[in-house]
Amino acid sequence: MSKRKIINDPVYDGFLSIDDPVILSVVEHPYFQRQRRIKQLGLTYLVYPGAMHTRFSHMLGALNLMGRALDTLRQKGVDITDDECRGAKLAILLHDIGHGPFSHTSERVLVDVPHEDITLMMMQRINAEMAGALDTAIAIFSNTYHKHFLHQLVSSQLDMDRLDYLGRDSFFTGVSEGIVGTDRIISMLNVHNDELVVDEKGIYSVEKFIISRRLMYWQVYMHKTVIAADNLLLNAISRARELDPTAFHLDTAAPDFIDRFAQLDDDDIMVAVKHWQHSDDPTLRTLCSNLVNRHLPAIRISNTPFEGIEDDYLHGTGELHNRSYDFNDQEIKVLYKDGRCVGISEASDQLDRHFLEKQVVKYYAYFPKEENSPSAQ
Amino acid sequence: MSKRKIINDPVYDGFLSIDDPVILSVVEHPYFQRQRRIKQLGLTYLVYPGAMHTRFSHMLGALNLMGRALDTLRQKGVDITDDECRGAKLAILLHDIGHGPFSHTSERVLVDVPHEDITLMMMQRINAEMAGALDTAIAIFSNTYHKHFLHQLVSSQLDMDRLDYLGRDSFFTGVSEGIVGTDRIISMLNVHNDELVVDEKGIYSVEKFIISRRLMYWQVYMHKTVIAADNLLLNAISRARELDPTAFHLDTAAPDFIDRFAQLDDDDIMVAVKHWQHSDDPTLRTLCSNLVNRHLPAIRISNTPFEGIEDDYLHGTGELHNRSYDFNDQEIKVLYKDGRCVGISEASDQLDRHFLEKQVVKYYAYFPKEENSPSAQ
Amino acid sequence: MSKRKIINDPVYDGFLSIDDPVILSVVEHPYFQRQRRIKQLGLTYLVYPGAMHTRFSHMLGALNLMGRALDTLRQKGVDITDDECRGAKLAILLHDIGHGPFSHTSERVLVDVPHEDITLMMMQRINAEMAGALDTAIAIFSNTYHKHFLHQLVSSQLDMDRLDYLGRDSFFTGVSEGIVGTDRIISMLNVHNDELVVDEKGIYSVEKFIISRRLMYWQVYMHKTVIAADNLLLNAISRARELDPTAFHLDTAAPDFIDRFAQLDDDDIMVAVKHWQHSDDPTLRTLCSNLVNRHLPAIRISNTPFEGIEDDYLHGTGELHNRSYDFNDQEIKVLYKDGRCVGISEASDQLDRHFLEKQVVKYYAYFPKEENSPSAQ
Amino acid sequence: MSKRKIINDPVYDGFLSIDDPVILSVVEHPYFQRQRRIKQLGLTYLVYPGAMHTRFSHMLGALNLMGRALDTLRQKGVDITDDECRGAKLAILLHDIGHGPFSHTSERVLVDVPHEDITLMMMQRINAEMAGALDTAIAIFSNTYHKHFLHQLVSSQLDMDRLDYLGRDSFFTGVSEGIVGTDRIISMLNVHNDELVVDEKGIYSVEKFIISRRLMYWQVYMHKTVIAADNLLLNAISRARELDPTAFHLDTAAPDFIDRFAQLDDDDIMVAVKHWQHSDDPTLRTLCSNLVNRHLPAIRISNTPFEGIEDDYLHGTGELHNRSYDFNDQEIKVLYKDGRCVGISEASDQLDRHFLEKQVVKYYAYFPKEENSPSAQ
Repeated sequence: MSKRKIINDPVYDGFLSIDDPVILSVVEHPYFQRQRRIKQLGLTYLVYPGAMHTRFSHMLGALNLMGRALDTLRQKGVDITDDECRGAKLAILLHDIGHGPFSHTSERVLVDVPHEDITLMMMQRINAEMAGALDTAIAIFSNTYHKHFLHQLVSSQLDMDRLDYLGRDSFFTGVSEGIVGTDRIISMLNVHNDELVVDEKGIYSVEKFIISRRLMYWQVYMHKTVIAADNLLLNAISRARELDPTAFHLDTAAPDFIDRFAQLDDDDIMVAVKHWQHSDDPTLRTLCSNLVNRHLPAIRISNTPFEGIEDDYLHGTGELHNRSYDFNDQEIKVLYKDGRCVGISEASDQLDRHFLEKQVVKYYAYFPKEENSPSAQ
Repeated sequence: MSKRKIINDPVYDGFLSIDDPVILSVVEHPYFQRQRRIKQLGLTYLVYPGAMHTRFSHMLGALNLMGRALDTLRQKGVDITDDECRGAKLAILLHDIGHGPFSHTSERVLVDVPHEDITLMMMQRINAEMAGALDTAIAIFSNTYHKHFLHQLVSSQLDMDRLDYLGRDSFFTGVSEGIVGTDRIISMLNVHNDELVVDEKGIYSVEKFIISRRLMYWQVYMHKTVIAADNLLLNAISRARELDPTAFHLDTAAPDFIDRFAQLDDDDIMVAVKHWQHSDDPTLRTLCSNLVNRHLPAIRISNTPFEGIEDDYLHGTGELHNRSYDFNDQEIKVLYKDGRCVGISEASDQLDRHFLEKQVVKYYAYFPKEENSPSAQ
Repeated sequence: MSKRKIINDPVYDGFLSIDDPVILSVVEHPYFQRQRRIKQLGLTYLVYPGAMHTRFSHMLGALNLMGRALDTLRQKGVDITDDECRGAKLAILLHDIGHGPFSHTSERVLVDVPHEDITLMMMQRINAEMAGALDTAIAIFSNTYHKHFLHQLVSSQLDMDRLDYLGRDSFFTGVSEGIVGTDRIISMLNVHNDELVVDEKGIYSVEKFIISRRLMYWQVYMHKTVIAADNLLLNAISRARELDPTAFHLDTAAPDFIDRFAQLDDDDIMVAVKHWQHSDDPTLRTLCSNLVNRHLPAIRISNTPFEGIEDDYLHGTGELHNRSYDFNDQEIKVLYKDGRCVGISEASDQLDRHFLEKQVVKYYAYFPKEENSPSAQ
Repeated sequence: MSKRKIINDPVYDGFLSIDDPVILSVVEHPYFQRQRRIKQLGLTYLVYPGAMHTRFSHMLGALNLMGRALDTLRQKGVDITDDECRGAKLAILLHDIGHGPFSHTSERVLVDVPHEDITLMMMQRINAEMAGALDTAIAIFSNTYHKHFLHQLVSSQLDMDRLDYLGRDSFFTGVSEGIVGTDRIISMLNVHNDELVVDEKGIYSVEKFIISRRLMYWQVYMHKTVIAADNLLLNAISRARELDPTAFHLDTAAPDFIDRFAQLDDDDIMVAVKHWQHSDDPTLRTLCSNLVNRHLPAIRISNTPFEGIEDDYLHGTGELHNRSYDFNDQEIKVLYKDGRCVGISEASDQLDRHFLEKQVVKYYAYFPKEENSPSAQ
């Protein structure tokens, strides 16, 4: 009987279990524990108060789904070795470990390398500490492993990352639009010519998944009030940097970069923002006090760009776009009983190319609540 | 048509709505917004990763339940004025506002006045700013209002606080043992001789509520690993104080006490703990690094006290006790159709006095994981 | 304190309550109680074993939603009298009472009048017994009442009937695709120029509703195995009729038609089918034994019609079509804060006219499992 | 890749899958399909309208849980052969197949042999048809198989039958009191000295399970209105028998007994009751019309027996008793990490012997609604 750790997770039946000692060691690693202090959805909790869930819980959830997916594929006769199982699990567990505080928000101002690069650096660092135990995981993550479908389980249009975050974000925000039949989709996964595919009976579930993702984009991920809050935080950090260039300065070329990066989490940013409320600079004071007390900018959305907006710390513009499904990326494939394998855009009666290709672009402008709304073109 | 604010809450059908402008103003007050940065269950997230939910969401949830309870009572003919409705809602909304960071944990070391006193100070401060709009709320909270049952909705063995936190904590931890038929209990509330009572048909639901609360005590609130983590945090703060008496020092007699207290939240404590990892003091370094990386003490539970345990920062003992139901407190009363009104201990076939009075006391000892377990008497 | 009846319903928080004595009387009427013996989804339980729920529970669920919708509209200042409230509730409660056993299936063979006509006859009969208590209800149902939006709550593209059945059928089949944010949609309802509309913030929820309905069509309502079972039952009854024209014969012109119709429910049909297993006619024996033991025909679906299929009792063809949204019917309207009111096809970024208008037609052929599949054109 | 059948089940994540061809054949057997027409909870739907679920769905649910339990035990190193797996699954699948229409209700009047005996007869009949494929299953069911714990999974105080029905009945009635952490309990199962036990960490879940069962007894299984309805049905059948001894007469000694028994289901009883509404006998007419139209007898519950009640078809008395836990039966055992194995009554801090042994007996009297209530001693 192997040692087994049970971790409680309200999203999937209340718990998940881990029994691989290598995976347990990675979960206990400080780089991984740090993700307990980084919220999955950044400032979204200012709109959806339940959305306090962390990257830590998302990574464990994705691990859980990966385990189920691998079990399903093996039951269907797909050849996956024990080493590949562990590799795929470690790859999904660590695939987002390079995210900084407030994830996407701060990434634009805190460091000048993409989070994928930091992820790889951190994986290599852990790998070195663990005598190469992550070799396969790194190959799968980097898409250099010869079985391509393992990478697709980690990163593709139907990967375990997306499956977990849609369900999880829906659960914690309370937005039922994101509920996905996760178990059913996973039970329909298969492999055909080294590609991850979905059995014919899973077409409806995939349709639901694509639509849910699109609805979650507009209702949660690009909620206009969240966009307003994000810009407020970005402007606060930028203004603080302007006043003191060493604020949260991280030199990506420095040898201790990863160590210093790994020290940083959401709490540091929020404590700094609270501190800056007492700055000598009135602009910084205003920005920070507004964020702490949730006095957010007004924001307008339009189908056409705004013009004539001054772009200072209190005003600004931007654009939002979303395409639920990417044809340039690999299509989700459906495997029929008769052996045919076609893209979902062809297999689906509901979601034809017109629907899937549709790209929506919107423009926004934010400004102090007290001012009049600007007008779009 | 009045202005209505809708706030998303995954626990109750996805959302709640507020349309009273006075209540909206209180929700927007910095004292209230601060509760977004205080977790409802402190360090419990180290055992139940989903338990990141905040006092902010709990207070709004309790407000929601209060609204439903008042509606039910009015429908049953109980006389409640509009002013009393608003008062009861404000009282439940603010009844825990005086909690400090990590709630019960830090209360023991950060300030030397009970959180109820701070709550009252904060309510009075807001009341002064709002020209007496909280007068009725404060009277209900302080139990000086002439309709006693309104206070019981805020604080009694079957109050809206407990109803919300049991359901909420169960939802976010994923421990199904705490699921309570909240809607059903509320629909069974009634008032008899100025006492909050439960209609006869609600006996089973009250039984379930009492049992759920007891199970949640042992499974969540007094989970031994949470107790170990709490002690680790307490010892870290105490050690830091020993080295520097000004650390998080709050003089409750100072005129700016409330202002300074209101600045403090979970984030400050965690950032200080991370900072103390680099202290000159090896004990403080160890304590803080252990907390940050979740290297928690081992802990043993016993029915008899432990003896011969040194009580330094790395070792310690304590006791846990729980009584699900307090006879010294007011009994939950059941109102029969024939007009009789008796305590649940008499009305229930399941939960007799023997079960309800049963007090369980347990003893714990924690110590570094590397050491051998101490033995109890 | 008025008499209040609480009825348990797993779909909405576990229960609903009725306190209007007129509504209670209608619920207790034999015509209404009969619906306990008619399944909402006919033979669908042969594919989704949980789908045993009855028209009785659906009608009560729709009543519950109507109550919430009326409360919401009144809170938003829409003028609705108490008599209109009762009328709208009775109209939704009874709007499907004229359905026969196995609903849509048997309607095609048992009676030659549409179920809407029988509904009206039954409503009038109850109205006569209750001294005109249903006058307003009948006017609302028949769309002769001067406030048009009340009829729309009973029958339109966003009525309480559809809202309840989508959620309920999803709950009992376990098909998560049909989960709809019912509470949220209802909270967004409004009235503009005597038309039922949805507030601007409800756009996403309406999109989700339309999409869920479309997915439920293909995944449940037109599931090919259910279609096969329906045809089997139809053929069994038709064959029995051919052998004995008095079998389940109902003369719609007879004075006791309604009385006799009201005696008939699912149980009668199933007991007859079991009985016919022992018929002298081999065809009838086969059809009935196949249905009783769930030995269903094979069925093929194609985008083009099948040809050369004999149309006897064991073989047959048909077509399926679904349009999730009907432009000929009244569009669902969205009311913006600035007073504009436009159709969802214009308001939605996701669901443009192309998507909404899309009509899918499919063709099916069924045949004994032992035979080879026919081919489509 | 083996053939796999997916069956939708709203209770567990929406579906379950079967891939063993022998199990599939048994599911397709007419004896098993017949359970689609027998409701799990008899007339309970007259109180809880959602409770239309069938023995068919319960049996499949229990099969699903058995599969998970066997997987868990194998993962913990318990030796279970493939033949034993299939045997345990078939045993749980068929363990209640001998129930007649309206289960417990009709058993008292329709046949004079216990349902367990009929179950065994039906299992032996299927076994004969399937060339001995059920040999192991029958041995496990009859508790003659040498590995005792396999029988305990089928029938004990913590068997898959109880686990499924508590969760399922709770789901369909909407009574949240019965929600059990099924997955968690199953993950805690283990085997010690050939006895089914629960790992130490599962104590709380077992406590919850025992309490839930007790609450479900009073709130659902022994709901007084259900008891009233049961007596009404029993009296109707008894009266019909008195008038015509051949009504639903089954001679258990006749060679075709099993065949005739297997033809009978809930539908036959209800159609007969509807038919008897037109009997010449006024008593039978009244009883049947009351049942069809849900005009149920009044019923009073008391802690002491009723006296002086005439026991005719319209009046009667009886008693209810429930003990949530049976010491005469085998205790649920808890296995500690240190190897100790003790009964739950000793292991639990909440549920001591006093609580577990407590036997509640209640007395009831039913009588026409129009009459005055009788008084208890």
